[in-house]
Amino acid sequence: MSEIRKHYFLDEHCIIAFGRSKRPSAPKACGDEIQSTSCVFCKCHEDETPLATAVYKKGEILKDTDKQRVTGWDIRCIPNLYPALSPDAPEVEEAVFEAKKGFGFHEVIIENPLHENRLHLFSDDEILLLMKTYRDRVLHYQSQKGIKYVSLFKNWGKKAGASLEHTHSQLIALPIMPSSILKEKKAIEDMENCPYCRIVEKENGKERQVYENDAFILIAPYYSKSPYEMWMLPKEHVNHISSFSDNMLLSLGDCIRKAVSLLDNTIPELAYNYMFFQLEHDQSYHFNVRIAPVTSIAAGFEKNTDIYINTMPPEVAVKHLQEKE
Amino acid sequence: MSEIRKHYFLDEHCIIAFGRSKRPSAPKACGDEIQSTSCVFCKCHEDETPLATAVYKKGEILKDTDKQRVTGWDIRCIPNLYPALSPDAPEVEEAVFEAKKGFGFHEVIIENPLHENRLHLFSDDEILLLMKTYRDRVLHYQSQKGIKYVSLFKNWGKKAGASLEHTHSQLIALPIMPSSILKEKKAIEDMENCPYCRIVEKENGKERQVYENDAFILIAPYYSKSPYEMWMLPKEHVNHISSFSDNMLLSLGDCIRKAVSLLDNTIPELAYNYMFFQLEHDQSYHFNVRIAPVTSIAAGFEKNTDIYINTMPPEVAVKHLQEKE
Repeated sequence: MSEIRKHYFLDEHCIIAFGRSKRPSAPKACGDEIQSTSCVFCKCHEDETPLATAVYKKGEILKDTDKQRVTGWDIRCIPNLYPALSPDAPEVEEAVFEAKKGFGFHEVIIENPLHENRLHLFSDDEILLLMKTYRDRVLHYQSQKGIKYVSLFKNWGKKAGASLEHTHSQLIALPIMPSSILKEKKAIEDMENCPYCRIVEKENGKERQVYENDAFILIAPYYSKSPYEMWMLPKEHVNHISSFSDNMLLSLGDCIRKAVSLLDNTIPELAYNYMFFQLEHDQSYHFNVRIAPVTSIAAGFEKNTDIYINTMPPEVAVKHLQEKE
Repeated sequence: MSEIRKHYFLDEHCIIAFGRSKRPSAPKACGDEIQSTSCVFCKCHEDETPLATAVYKKGEILKDTDKQRVTGWDIRCIPNLYPALSPDAPEVEEAVFEAKKGFGFHEVIIENPLHENRLHLFSDDEILLLMKTYRDRVLHYQSQKGIKYVSLFKNWGKKAGASLEHTHSQLIALPIMPSSILKEKKAIEDMENCPYCRIVEKENGKERQVYENDAFILIAPYYSKSPYEMWMLPKEHVNHISSFSDNMLLSLGDCIRKAVSLLDNTIPELAYNYMFFQLEHDQSYHFNVRIAPVTSIAAGFEKNTDIYINTMPPEVAVKHLQEKE
């Protein structure tokens, strides 16, 4: 049960989601022995979650039914048990201020059946399948009636907000355009050329570049809000994952895996979030993924000004990340 | 040594402050016994900090000199030893992207000489003196050449970014207007009436009001980004602390003390930030203070969309806060 409340006078929103306070608050460490009784995301525990809406298994895409759960899967997509938004949200009672019902979808993408497998250890096949799943699921929800934006992200580690340890991503399909994306869209509309293409042009091969492959560059951005922040940008202008070829998906997956691996080498077990920024129906937008390791705290100054104090220049971060390789 | 970097294409900034990484990262607990050797903010340790720029002592305002540090003080203002910005910042080397030198001021306001004293235990005299100090110091920096905005805030508790335990506030004087304030200013310019006056009108005496005194109301805002978030609003329209009478300062201090006290009663030792929002040269702005307890994590979804998921409706938060009173 939730509702989307508008700021008193700005075009900003928050989701009041009362039910989510019941979710597990701490990741449960579970080794091989105890895994079978503690982690609902592990294989052989399919009946401890809501019915899967999409199950990737040996090249096929299946679904759970009331009668049968798919086992032996590679990737499993399930509705979040404590959804921020849901398709059957009740109407909001009339209020003095603006709110709309908490309509939407909240899905968990279990990236691998094995508890001990982690993203930076994924094979090419595994990472490609994950990227294909991302593409499929974003497209699926993007085409649902009433959905304006699909937020795709991963929280890794308790400090990054992950309530379960087993490697997973999440997707929240929203009935509104988020202010973060609208702000960029508006700025880009006023510009002659794509600002992200300019970033690629200026940063590619230079001191803030961390890594590059066929289709992507990985940089520590000049404007870095925290130590080890990284951005992944396709070299060619493309607005949305829906138009990615399989080769491009593999390049993206390789870039994400690289970023995560460099972070883990530099500060073992570092918590992080990564987020997809894209716009399906706006060719002027330039797809990008940002990874934000949890290395600092947004304190009073940041909450007052929206200006972040970063104690590590990105030029130094690049050196740290690369020397541990 | 720091610089203020502009976002690649948005009107947003971050401060790259390399020196700050050396500051103490954890608050040091120090009881009465060990206090004398461990906390530089305690009385009798005046010579372990930079020279105080303003010292409040028995109704007088003094200053440290090279030859003599003021002792027996009530409130002591010192330059931050690890400043985010400084008055003698060097010019920035020319870069491909936009940056300006890290010019500004970063001050620590030590609110009380005693380590064990805490804000919610302050007497009326102590809280009034703190508010007067806030007014004086904001005005002092606001009038410095090149300063566009003075951010005043308090971080309490390690999880809220406080690196020392002894009760203190901070002030960062900026050579730019922060985007958070500009955004509100712009929205208000397009409106006929003050939106904050409307909030006061609609929330005063209603279910989301937590407390009120002569001049202020304390509310859990309808648009709450996290559990127990509270806003303090003057009932009368006033734009800046510089025009506050002593009575109004006492009302403000009483309201802050009340908010902090309710939080501590509800969740003992809860970390929080509070921040002052005000505009000196713009009568259309409505002064307010916001207190944000650290009860949740901004994770991937928040970093993607700027939409915050809050698991506790403010209407419920009010009940929790008041039942422990």
